[in-house]
Amino acid sequence: MSRTVVRGGLVITAAEETHADVLIEDGRIAALAAHDSATADGWTAGADRVLDATGKYVIPGGVDAHTHLDFPFGGTFSSDTFESGTRAAAWGGTTTLVDFAVQTRGQALRAGLDLWHAKADAQCAIDYAFHMILSDVNDHTLKEMDLLVSEGVTSFKLFTAYPGVFLSDDGQILRAMQRAAGNGGLVLMHAENGPAIDVLIQQALAAGHTGPRYHGEVRHPLLEAEATHRTIQLARIAGAPLYVVHVSAEQAVDEIAQARHAGLNVFGETCPQYLFLSTDNLAEPDFEGAKYVCSTPLRPREHHAALWRALRTNDLQVVSTDHCPFCFRGQKELGRDDFSKIPNGLPGVENRMDLLHQSVVEGRIGRRRWIEIACATPARMFGLYPKKGTLAPGSDADLVLYDPTAEQTLSARTHHMNVDYSAYEGKRITGQVVTVLSRGEPVIDAREFTGRAGHGQYIPRGTCQYLM
Amino acid sequence: MSRTVVRGGLVITAAEETHADVLIEDGRIAALAAHDSATADGWTAGADRVLDATGKYVIPGGVDAHTHLDFPFGGTFSSDTFESGTRAAAWGGTTTLVDFAVQTRGQALRAGLDLWHAKADAQCAIDYAFHMILSDVNDHTLKEMDLLVSEGVTSFKLFTAYPGVFLSDDGQILRAMQRAAGNGGLVLMHAENGPAIDVLIQQALAAGHTGPRYHGEVRHPLLEAEATHRTIQLARIAGAPLYVVHVSAEQAVDEIAQARHAGLNVFGETCPQYLFLSTDNLAEPDFEGAKYVCSTPLRPREHHAALWRALRTNDLQVVSTDHCPFCFRGQKELGRDDFSKIPNGLPGVENRMDLLHQSVVEGRIGRRRWIEIACATPARMFGLYPKKGTLAPGSDADLVLYDPTAEQTLSARTHHMNVDYSAYEGKRITGQVVTVLSRGEPVIDAREFTGRAGHGQYIPRGTCQYLM
Amino acid sequence: MSRTVVRGGLVITAAEETHADVLIEDGRIAALAAHDSATADGWTAGADRVLDATGKYVIPGGVDAHTHLDFPFGGTFSSDTFESGTRAAAWGGTTTLVDFAVQTRGQALRAGLDLWHAKADAQCAIDYAFHMILSDVNDHTLKEMDLLVSEGVTSFKLFTAYPGVFLSDDGQILRAMQRAAGNGGLVLMHAENGPAIDVLIQQALAAGHTGPRYHGEVRHPLLEAEATHRTIQLARIAGAPLYVVHVSAEQAVDEIAQARHAGLNVFGETCPQYLFLSTDNLAEPDFEGAKYVCSTPLRPREHHAALWRALRTNDLQVVSTDHCPFCFRGQKELGRDDFSKIPNGLPGVENRMDLLHQSVVEGRIGRRRWIEIACATPARMFGLYPKKGTLAPGSDADLVLYDPTAEQTLSARTHHMNVDYSAYEGKRITGQVVTVLSRGEPVIDAREFTGRAGHGQYIPRGTCQYLM
Amino acid sequence: MSRTVVRGGLVITAAEETHADVLIEDGRIAALAAHDSATADGWTAGADRVLDATGKYVIPGGVDAHTHLDFPFGGTFSSDTFESGTRAAAWGGTTTLVDFAVQTRGQALRAGLDLWHAKADAQCAIDYAFHMILSDVNDHTLKEMDLLVSEGVTSFKLFTAYPGVFLSDDGQILRAMQRAAGNGGLVLMHAENGPAIDVLIQQALAAGHTGPRYHGEVRHPLLEAEATHRTIQLARIAGAPLYVVHVSAEQAVDEIAQARHAGLNVFGETCPQYLFLSTDNLAEPDFEGAKYVCSTPLRPREHHAALWRALRTNDLQVVSTDHCPFCFRGQKELGRDDFSKIPNGLPGVENRMDLLHQSVVEGRIGRRRWIEIACATPARMFGLYPKKGTLAPGSDADLVLYDPTAEQTLSARTHHMNVDYSAYEGKRITGQVVTVLSRGEPVIDAREFTGRAGHGQYIPRGTCQYLM
Repeated sequence: MSRTVVRGGLVITAAEETHADVLIEDGRIAALAAHDSATADGWTAGADRVLDATGKYVIPGGVDAHTHLDFPFGGTFSSDTFESGTRAAAWGGTTTLVDFAVQTRGQALRAGLDLWHAKADAQCAIDYAFHMILSDVNDHTLKEMDLLVSEGVTSFKLFTAYPGVFLSDDGQILRAMQRAAGNGGLVLMHAENGPAIDVLIQQALAAGHTGPRYHGEVRHPLLEAEATHRTIQLARIAGAPLYVVHVSAEQAVDEIAQARHAGLNVFGETCPQYLFLSTDNLAEPDFEGAKYVCSTPLRPREHHAALWRALRTNDLQVVSTDHCPFCFRGQKELGRDDFSKIPNGLPGVENRMDLLHQSVVEGRIGRRRWIEIACATPARMFGLYPKKGTLAPGSDADLVLYDPTAEQTLSARTHHMNVDYSAYEGKRITGQVVTVLSRGEPVIDAREFTGRAGHGQYIPRGTCQYLM
Repeated sequence: MSRTVVRGGLVITAAEETHADVLIEDGRIAALAAHDSATADGWTAGADRVLDATGKYVIPGGVDAHTHLDFPFGGTFSSDTFESGTRAAAWGGTTTLVDFAVQTRGQALRAGLDLWHAKADAQCAIDYAFHMILSDVNDHTLKEMDLLVSEGVTSFKLFTAYPGVFLSDDGQILRAMQRAAGNGGLVLMHAENGPAIDVLIQQALAAGHTGPRYHGEVRHPLLEAEATHRTIQLARIAGAPLYVVHVSAEQAVDEIAQARHAGLNVFGETCPQYLFLSTDNLAEPDFEGAKYVCSTPLRPREHHAALWRALRTNDLQVVSTDHCPFCFRGQKELGRDDFSKIPNGLPGVENRMDLLHQSVVEGRIGRRRWIEIACATPARMFGLYPKKGTLAPGSDADLVLYDPTAEQTLSARTHHMNVDYSAYEGKRITGQVVTVLSRGEPVIDAREFTGRAGHGQYIPRGTCQYLM
Repeated sequence: MSRTVVRGGLVITAAEETHADVLIEDGRIAALAAHDSATADGWTAGADRVLDATGKYVIPGGVDAHTHLDFPFGGTFSSDTFESGTRAAAWGGTTTLVDFAVQTRGQALRAGLDLWHAKADAQCAIDYAFHMILSDVNDHTLKEMDLLVSEGVTSFKLFTAYPGVFLSDDGQILRAMQRAAGNGGLVLMHAENGPAIDVLIQQALAAGHTGPRYHGEVRHPLLEAEATHRTIQLARIAGAPLYVVHVSAEQAVDEIAQARHAGLNVFGETCPQYLFLSTDNLAEPDFEGAKYVCSTPLRPREHHAALWRALRTNDLQVVSTDHCPFCFRGQKELGRDDFSKIPNGLPGVENRMDLLHQSVVEGRIGRRRWIEIACATPARMFGLYPKKGTLAPGSDADLVLYDPTAEQTLSARTHHMNVDYSAYEGKRITGQVVTVLSRGEPVIDAREFTGRAGHGQYIPRGTCQYLM
Repeated sequence: MSRTVVRGGLVITAAEETHADVLIEDGRIAALAAHDSATADGWTAGADRVLDATGKYVIPGGVDAHTHLDFPFGGTFSSDTFESGTRAAAWGGTTTLVDFAVQTRGQALRAGLDLWHAKADAQCAIDYAFHMILSDVNDHTLKEMDLLVSEGVTSFKLFTAYPGVFLSDDGQILRAMQRAAGNGGLVLMHAENGPAIDVLIQQALAAGHTGPRYHGEVRHPLLEAEATHRTIQLARIAGAPLYVVHVSAEQAVDEIAQARHAGLNVFGETCPQYLFLSTDNLAEPDFEGAKYVCSTPLRPREHHAALWRALRTNDLQVVSTDHCPFCFRGQKELGRDDFSKIPNGLPGVENRMDLLHQSVVEGRIGRRRWIEIACATPARMFGLYPKKGTLAPGSDADLVLYDPTAEQTLSARTHHMNVDYSAYEGKRITGQVVTVLSRGEPVIDAREFTGRAGHGQYIPRGTCQYLM
């Protein structure tokens, strides 16, 4: 039995800030004891390994519930593999990913899931799980949903956007929600009115508006809010919970807030890009705006305040990355003459914990809320808690030593994601990951990568632990 | 050094449910370790005392942030002293009270506080703290507020009700809020439009409507909502947080929810009587309705759903008791011919944890939310956390072994409050307190009272730990 | 030149109640003069015809902006022709209809419009105009919209319901709205989420729920509200006004009210069936419920109050009939084994003015509001004012003498619509039409039909005169 | 019998725009006839006087429902007498004033009303009526309310502002509203939280903030919204209608809109100063800001859009002037060292019709809405319709020929109000009054004053004709 002690740090979870030492046995948290107690002192004596966390935060490893590794989009694939992407995640203090397996239209969910297992198997530096993207909703796939839930794939993404590719009509969405209401699955929604957006895209292109900034204009905030409202009503009728991914528009936040005030099990996720970037980036010259093309799109700065407020009021509950990187050279450039051909997605899996810590430094959220939105709630939402997302006796020893006073500058030159630019190039951050344990094993050790592809395990998930 | 181990239980805090043993050293939680871990097993061997919590919940002692012990009202005094009231609280699994010291009009806050210290000193079975009721707002009392905050009395109650007794006008309320914004104090508000209610009281009495049910009719829900809205606006202007006590009307909940959605630091408390009782009780014949006279008043049953929903959505954050008992014989009877002369208040300090557990059993809230609204949030709200309100290394060992399957019937015949009736007479409850520790000392031990007057200590409080 | 004088009545328009005589010259209102003025007295002397309106109301003829005469639905046709339908309208005090011409999918708007002209030409007892139903939205039909507007067909109905028949997708709706924003047209919306409803229909039938009452259950109020919200957002993006037809659900009213409070040009119509009938009727035994099958469906009684309130607050502006009668025998019976095969529609064109007068008698709305929602606003909304909808110098002399104290009983035995049942069989009404003039010609004269097929003329309409 | 014909104009009322000639007999509208009809032509032949309105609007004389002539405030009196004020009103196209009689505290309403009758008697150029300001609410004044209603003083103003002067507490307000609910009276409310404002005034002065701009800062928009919300709730409880005077803050508009959406009889008035002026004016240097000191105060420009929108959506129904002029020299100067001593009020009775016409020219409201908010609705609201506020057979011949294309510049050099400045100095207006008839008599004739003190009569009013 291997014993590790993390001593002298401030243990921060969603609920507590405790001056405690942490005892790790066989990859799990065995115990926490107050600093300098006889008990804690006894541990250090008998430990195989002692990590000194004095002056550091000891936090649960991040849970990033929205990534797209090796993801096909618009004729290309996102540039991070499970190998490179999970390594970068670890560098950024994230120890669990939930990635999106994709059903190919006309094929079984199982086939898509198998493909994603094959992509990930033996590649990952950290633990991972899968959501399933439902490209078809029909009797067959609805039956498969039941099976997948029982196997630990308990969440299913649907789209009101991307007609002809991922879009499900409202009848299909209703059927999937009804099924989820019965089998305990959680429906995730990409909420934008795709058919209306496609009209605006065609009109923009016809008007010669081909640059990246028009990506933001045609994907109107009201079309996000509309689809959010619509799918909330469908979920009400189905009696199903709903989790809206990558919420970016103030008006969409309002829809979610209103539903929650009515007591509905409606949840919302936003992403760092919506909190820190804006349409100003989309308007950067020389096609640089393409770096920031993702959907839902970046919004005008005026939307930021509503998102931060919603993170404080719990009208939004989770910050994920929607990490889906495409290199500027060769990939983003596919849309140089037509913004609608720019692959949609940003890199970010490595930056999330740091960017959110920066918001703690700036007073936007508190420390515990940082851990809640980045670790605890995504773990609960997707059936991983308390194995992941917290530091409690019995939890996996996915643990980060975080230096709250270190200073760093985000840059493509130093990041570990496999992509030729950073969406946050030059941004100064106070706070940095020092050491990362995954089930007790050091993956990052004093800012050296000590992990390995294949350490990371697939985690079957339980169902959503929302509300009660 | 005394060492106690609580083993084999399910430790429930606001955030976690952990199968862990708890090690107590010198009155504080020293460590938690997973059941059956080598560490946990080692503790038992070396313990002075081992409590077997197998099949039980191990929860933080309750924090009741709203009690009125030995409180003068309408020419009489509430019937529980600090001695009897804190003992009853302990029986009910509550280990900390925050009671309301009263400033007498025209006198210094200090004088009122001294009087309350004298009432409590050496009488209490459990720990206690004080809020201060501001009966006057003037230059002198505003200066005293600063001093009291620095001494650990960090919250101040104002009234928009009871003209001529406790009512402050809106200018006074604004001044007190401005002062609180500066000194870190928290303003607590009894929000009902007193001048309008007094008109309706006079009209009801003039119409011969003298019975207890008219107490509920004249204190109109809209007059609670109005004062709630009004004081929220005053708090916005002052830049101060606001905590609204004993919220009972759906429309008042809506005002609070709307303020919170706007990102304001507005908080709301409700009480078990508003969740379990209704105007039906006020209408009980033979003057029995007087037992249920309190202000804000009980509301029609239709309001219950809104309160429960708000407790789930966190639009309400705390359940306190507003424990303020008056005996039916001799006290409530003062208003036999005139409902406005019935002393306002109900007994409840002993019943809160059980009634809320009953709501867990009935599926209204979850187990962690039970602890959150009854222990953790009141402790945070009033600057007692993490000393009180949770079970973490370093916290006071205020801990309850709770049997979730025991059955009991609430009754004045068996309760320990010094009052001749129960507001919940005959109500069946699943769940019961077994053993209660206060700073590691057994106060209730296997349903025997083993505490003593004087064990309980006065706790100076920090300021409100709201939001960040 | 023929001169008619209507003397002694109370002239009621949307704005005024005037004790005035009305002078009609050549089919138009020439002048109004105070009773007993020298001017008025002079008229009587020189008149060709004097109608004594003493004790009667003199009101503008009703404008019913939503009828379906000779309308194909589900393999049959509505049972009133333009001949029978316009005659029945006249009996009920309505002197202008706006009927819906239908584009057949794949054909030109022009072809549909020509067909409707052929149906109506030389058949009508009263004046009429046309809306156009857009079954296809494409480059060709969008261009035709411009032309039709210039010819006096200035409003276009789209559907979010009836997939495969009338449904337009959100992109098509957006395009049509954009076109309307440019050419002055007004988009009318049947707002129900058709794809979701179709799922619920299939599920209901699969569960053996085949009776008429299930028609109401599957067409869920939230699915009306959803589509209302959605199309309001699309109209906002297009910068176009929107008129929602046959609003029946309280939640849909709320969406409209919210849009109007935001200053949007969003309008809503309801119909007498939603004000006076309910799901109780749909549940009538022996397939009698089929008589009340229409879409949007009848709602539970609880929705009535919201509709009446909205009519008072002007959140709804128009009451039309959606007159679309199908005989119980032979037509409604098509759905005896499958509610989804029951032709959708109710008779009502003859009853509207009387039912709304009954609501005046019952104190739900005022007399002027009666005329506003039944005559003036529909005329303004659809570009017919002040030719129709009021009694002012220069207006067409479409005028009704209405006896506010007469009593009648609605019944299929006495009505003039070509349908074998009345939706209001046995309902007692205070108030009745006595005499109806269409452009000065008596169509009903002291409760005798004196009109003729072919008197009614087609009226090209101007564009919507909403707001300013 | 004198007969006047107004021929060739466009007659505009709240409801209609009619090309009609108007026949006036004995001071009342006898008839309207279409231009060039035989009837109309006949009138001209027999008329005593023919006014050629070709190219002009023919509109009802304005009804200004909120003036303070010869009004005591802060130790001085408003500078317009009934003689000068009514003459200026006539110049501006207003033919009816409703002025505020004031009860002196401790005296009878009757005494105040008698005093106002004495001030007005034989002085007025146009007709007038009275509201009553209730300075005391007690058993005696409540009884007097009944009497006054029966005599034609049917509206009563209360204040939540001005503690010690006009303020009534919430109990008094409730009692007055209950009385009004019974006797048909209408309560008018000056809604600002006076006690809170007084605190902010004292704090501002103590901080050396003595200039006029601080008048705007201390009278916080939320304190207007708060009092609006509060008095709406009191009116709900009383079952009484409520009319909120001089609404200036967006948040107050929202409260009214919300109440109206709920179907309550709540009404709101704004004034030209809130639509055209702003806190920028209050900040004008050299104490010039004092010219714009009134209460409620001018608001930042950002509030304008909400007021205009509310005028379009009918969330606000009336534009009055709150005309209460004080000369800059000698009167406004009383507050040179202390903004709280600046007499509150602006001149405006002469400018209202023109300023609102300017908003028609600029496309903010339509022509009929102009007449509705300035003539028809105030007349209906205060029981003067259809005698005043419209042009219909039987109405008083209070009629204005308005040239919609004339250009003018507002200025103290040319205005007729008895005050040494204009709040709109230099503002260019398109549109001007040409001729004004009061009960058929020319008061302004082709821009000459032809009226006389004493022509104007006192008009006892009926009760509020709101809604139904």
